[in-house]
Amino acid sequence: MADARTALVISAHAADFVWRCGGAIALHQARGYAVTIVCLSYGERGESARLWARDGMTLERVKAERRREAEAAARALDAHDIRFLDVGDYPLEVDRETKIHLVELIRAVRPAFMMSHALHDPYNTDHVTAVGVAMECRMIAQARGHDPGGRALDAPQLYLFEPHQTEQSGWKPDVLLDISPVWEKKAAAIACMTGQEHLWTYYTNLAENRGNHFRRNAGGGTVGYAEAFQSVYPRCVDELR
Amino acid sequence: MADARTALVISAHAADFVWRCGGAIALHQARGYAVTIVCLSYGERGESARLWARDGMTLERVKAERRREAEAAARALDAHDIRFLDVGDYPLEVDRETKIHLVELIRAVRPAFMMSHALHDPYNTDHVTAVGVAMECRMIAQARGHDPGGRALDAPQLYLFEPHQTEQSGWKPDVLLDISPVWEKKAAAIACMTGQEHLWTYYTNLAENRGNHFRRNAGGGTVGYAEAFQSVYPRCVDELR
Amino acid sequence: MADARTALVISAHAADFVWRCGGAIALHQARGYAVTIVCLSYGERGESARLWARDGMTLERVKAERRREAEAAARALDAHDIRFLDVGDYPLEVDRETKIHLVELIRAVRPAFMMSHALHDPYNTDHVTAVGVAMECRMIAQARGHDPGGRALDAPQLYLFEPHQTEQSGWKPDVLLDISPVWEKKAAAIACMTGQEHLWTYYTNLAENRGNHFRRNAGGGTVGYAEAFQSVYPRCVDELR
Amino acid sequence: MADARTALVISAHAADFVWRCGGAIALHQARGYAVTIVCLSYGERGESARLWARDGMTLERVKAERRREAEAAARALDAHDIRFLDVGDYPLEVDRETKIHLVELIRAVRPAFMMSHALHDPYNTDHVTAVGVAMECRMIAQARGHDPGGRALDAPQLYLFEPHQTEQSGWKPDVLLDISPVWEKKAAAIACMTGQEHLWTYYTNLAENRGNHFRRNAGGGTVGYAEAFQSVYPRCVDELR
Amino acid sequence: MADARTALVISAHAADFVWRCGGAIALHQARGYAVTIVCLSYGERGESARLWARDGMTLERVKAERRREAEAAARALDAHDIRFLDVGDYPLEVDRETKIHLVELIRAVRPAFMMSHALHDPYNTDHVTAVGVAMECRMIAQARGHDPGGRALDAPQLYLFEPHQTEQSGWKPDVLLDISPVWEKKAAAIACMTGQEHLWTYYTNLAENRGNHFRRNAGGGTVGYAEAFQSVYPRCVDELR
Amino acid sequence: MADARTALVISAHAADFVWRCGGAIALHQARGYAVTIVCLSYGERGESARLWARDGMTLERVKAERRREAEAAARALDAHDIRFLDVGDYPLEVDRETKIHLVELIRAVRPAFMMSHALHDPYNTDHVTAVGVAMECRMIAQARGHDPGGRALDAPQLYLFEPHQTEQSGWKPDVLLDISPVWEKKAAAIACMTGQEHLWTYYTNLAENRGNHFRRNAGGGTVGYAEAFQSVYPRCVDELR
Repeated sequence: MADARTALVISAHAADFVWRCGGAIALHQARGYAVTIVCLSYGERGESARLWARDGMTLERVKAERRREAEAAARALDAHDIRFLDVGDYPLEVDRETKIHLVELIRAVRPAFMMSHALHDPYNTDHVTAVGVAMECRMIAQARGHDPGGRALDAPQLYLFEPHQTEQSGWKPDVLLDISPVWEKKAAAIACMTGQEHLWTYYTNLAENRGNHFRRNAGGGTVGYAEAFQSVYPRCVDELR
Repeated sequence: MADARTALVISAHAADFVWRCGGAIALHQARGYAVTIVCLSYGERGESARLWARDGMTLERVKAERRREAEAAARALDAHDIRFLDVGDYPLEVDRETKIHLVELIRAVRPAFMMSHALHDPYNTDHVTAVGVAMECRMIAQARGHDPGGRALDAPQLYLFEPHQTEQSGWKPDVLLDISPVWEKKAAAIACMTGQEHLWTYYTNLAENRGNHFRRNAGGGTVGYAEAFQSVYPRCVDELR
Repeated sequence: MADARTALVISAHAADFVWRCGGAIALHQARGYAVTIVCLSYGERGESARLWARDGMTLERVKAERRREAEAAARALDAHDIRFLDVGDYPLEVDRETKIHLVELIRAVRPAFMMSHALHDPYNTDHVTAVGVAMECRMIAQARGHDPGGRALDAPQLYLFEPHQTEQSGWKPDVLLDISPVWEKKAAAIACMTGQEHLWTYYTNLAENRGNHFRRNAGGGTVGYAEAFQSVYPRCVDELR
Repeated sequence: MADARTALVISAHAADFVWRCGGAIALHQARGYAVTIVCLSYGERGESARLWARDGMTLERVKAERRREAEAAARALDAHDIRFLDVGDYPLEVDRETKIHLVELIRAVRPAFMMSHALHDPYNTDHVTAVGVAMECRMIAQARGHDPGGRALDAPQLYLFEPHQTEQSGWKPDVLLDISPVWEKKAAAIACMTGQEHLWTYYTNLAENRGNHFRRNAGGGTVGYAEAFQSVYPRCVDELR
Repeated sequence: MADARTALVISAHAADFVWRCGGAIALHQARGYAVTIVCLSYGERGESARLWARDGMTLERVKAERRREAEAAARALDAHDIRFLDVGDYPLEVDRETKIHLVELIRAVRPAFMMSHALHDPYNTDHVTAVGVAMECRMIAQARGHDPGGRALDAPQLYLFEPHQTEQSGWKPDVLLDISPVWEKKAAAIACMTGQEHLWTYYTNLAENRGNHFRRNAGGGTVGYAEAFQSVYPRCVDELR
Repeated sequence: MADARTALVISAHAADFVWRCGGAIALHQARGYAVTIVCLSYGERGESARLWARDGMTLERVKAERRREAEAAARALDAHDIRFLDVGDYPLEVDRETKIHLVELIRAVRPAFMMSHALHDPYNTDHVTAVGVAMECRMIAQARGHDPGGRALDAPQLYLFEPHQTEQSGWKPDVLLDISPVWEKKAAAIACMTGQEHLWTYYTNLAENRGNHFRRNAGGGTVGYAEAFQSVYPRCVDELR
């Protein structure tokens, strides 16, 4: 198994990583992981309604503002490596060249685990595109004959983070992560997303309620905040814990 | 989370624990766990065809022979605690008194994890009954108001072991366990089941092929034998590994 | 594989076999099979609304009338062996003694295939009970240690016939049977169910539309009427046809 | 369709109706419906942990306290008809006599709609038992031949209320109900459940987040609090709205 | 929620809207809605077998004939707005330009609800493509930053109409619509499809049988003909009806 | 129904047909079928790790070696018609021109049945692409208006062969094929794949274990080796066997 202490997040829009796995990012940074965040787009068309409500907005200004917010959020999470591929959103489309770039990035990072969106989402086809690209590029990165001089990827887990309406997306979490130690950082990152204030309370409520689920499934304890993820692949262990 | 180093297997018939989780039993015994094995029945009617082919067999003689085999198999796995509830098989039926007995047993063992059958199996309704009883009794053991003087159970994971025809049973493993260190013990336990020789090769093949799956999902390595399990509940972690 | 030319239908209520597999019964009788029909109940409470609308009806009179209709329908289908277990309906409950009786019947018939209801039905828990009993008794009949002097059952297919609202019941057919040669017999059997005239057109429409599905999946042809079934178990073949 | 302005809630334990459909109860009471609440048990063993932590508790004292709380909660919701069947919990078991009693109750109420638990719940087999009883009794109540002198039930919708861990229970909501007008009443009912204070925040968070889902699916608006339900049966309409 | 009295149908081939939602179109036109029908293709290659059987046919002549039939059918349904995008069929492929055109159309219509094909169909990948485009374009139309001067779409329901073989397509209806008042119009529209006479009886049978399902789920009544639909999104209500 | 004695296999990579349906190919060749094998790619990048481990390898040399192996394997199976479309792998992408070529091939072969990959596979998006192309091209080949002078395809079954990790791919077999008579041929074909020796034991184990499943589902017999397949479409029969 990989000895890497790195992780890779592939986010369709600039803010997804904050709501959906900001705790995981901050927590693993705190544990010594180097987390790389890839934002395929800025979410400039589809997830910036409040920015567009301001006067004099253009696509470029919205993108710049979204980038600024996302960079601030990454800093709040102690993440130092955030990339913006700017492929456009609504619809998000990823061409072959971008995929090859992602493959190289995956191989360079050699993540212990990857994170991306749920496999289905009737509200957001961009999310489905993003996770499809993540799975395809992971597979190409594993191919010994792709860029044969390079070092092929092993088999990092792919964690699917929580979609907005879980039941409608057929997403079922199998792992609950205690993010209590870094909750303040996630809260600070959320507060960077000034264009989406209506979601602050929502994701705070959610983290508290996932904390309740954590306590239920752990048989008690004092965990206050949690994030939930669905694993794509079976995990390989030498003891059942 | 439980600090217990115990585990509890609830098996419908006397031999199920050998084929389906013999490796997990031997491995955890080797790691210092005390594993308790409960055989709800001997499988005397439905899973003893070769014994019935002998002359002069009666139900009692078949049960005695099955018990002898199961005890030998448990010893081969280094398990020291095997219980036979003898509720009958084909059909296996569990009355309220037996359930209460199981609840007490679960509370006494306080397992770090439990194991039982897959949730569905169109070939074997006894298996479905057994796992239903396991889930119900786990729930009762958690109830603070059941036998209020006793100590209520926390929330041990329930691992579902592999049914004979996985795809027909809708069973999907999410954890692969390396049983290479104890393979010889499992092989020895399998060899105790003299009434079911036709399954020896089958389960050896399966363990090898699950070993292949382990290597695929681990990104390589030298694991030779594995067992696969499906978790019922999400796991609670403080790091994604 | 069985060389038997027999089949067994397990029907929750007296009329189910007519609507749901009357064509299959008549067709296989015509092909030389001996089909045994078991009606667990008469459907006297829950499926006899028009009979209850008559004056002076009692449970016994409704049951007698339903039996008369079902026997006439069986004759119309050329089936000579119909049994009424009279266990009561709404709810249909099957005790252990009745199950053992069914096991004996299954072993006596040694069917090449069995038929019963869909696995789920949110409108009719009796149907779900009936198919559960069919699967459990089939399993017991296979157990070498059940009535060890008897001859254990092999592994007949279990076909699930069409529930009234297929999509709500999660039923998915994988086999379409051409019943055109016996359609007139099925129509005659349907006409015996004088208490349920509102369903005559319904099941005629259905048979025509399943005939359309047959032609679609067969790539053409002139099949006019069909019935659809879902197999529980994989089929075993020596050529893919 | 029924012209009834009544509704019927079948709750496994005394507090379930508060968390899971307290808003629906208060809202429909306010709209002129008469809502009948049936608590199959008090949840005395399995859902009264804080009561059991007090000194000198017995099963009867816990049941009395739970009844007092549930009656207070019903009053807070303006519901005037709450029944306690006291069949016991963990496990909840419903005998034939109790089912017949429920059938009579359903026929007497003639509800425009019914409510009960999700169809699956790996944490709580009592919930699954309760909804199974609700579906079975609804079916019996529809049978013209059950108590033939009585008036058979039509076909009320059965709404499944939200389980604690939705994704683990395979529950998918298809209707979101605006409970903003009665939120204060639901909050007051929640506050009656003094034995389960740890859930107050949880269900407040949930109602706010379901309000967010409501606004998303409604295309905006000011709905603050919502409850979510899954329908068992298709709805019948004369216009798509 | 939208106060619009408009609806939008997105049909892969020229005739789909007739069979699958002709009743809904006629009914809502009669109720004062303005229904816009978009035919992505004419179904000229894959659904015009009888036209191709005539002498001297070319792709253009088939398309012209299909258009003529579809326009006549729309008139029979009292629909006044039918558009043909002529993107080709078997396979149906929708480029980005066409998607943007559809987005503009959706925004212009501002439908109270949309209709399109089932999400899966192993017989017809064109249908799956069509509904995918419908969902993607609905999402883009909601994006505030797409054509920022325009008025973004709210959240209209998307109803999936009935595929030819429902169970094979994993389609499950949750709403049944009474189309009895407009059945004669639908029958007249069906009769316009002279190239597909073999389907006339099929869809008449189906409408009658869905009428039976309507009566079952409504608890009686006299509805003679119905159409069935599956909703993609939860509905938002202030009363459970 | 087709009187054709031909079959068509559409394989994503050069070796897939060996592992997954080599027995079916050899068996049907022995029964007088002419089986055409289409390899969309050589699997040169993603499934040739051992070849790449040799010195001096280039993409062209790997492809040549893979072709040589696949041709040898086809010969070992007595298959005389193997085609290499060389569209590239990891990712496998099929353009419109290639699809049209496949449609012509399907029409020329007029297969009694087709074979391709499972519908889902989280490990291998190439497999999913391949089966999608197979279904799309089958549909186009059925279209009377595609190349109207040609003879349209009827409705051959599409069998999905076994993916490497069945449960992770949601694949459920419904047919088990006895390949005992040709096992030596399949073993010889497997031995041609010198670049993938680590899979020889794996697929031998699998064939033996599927043989066990065959015997279970057939009620006994002496079948030693089997392959398993999932049918996409219902089968059309005039007798239930």
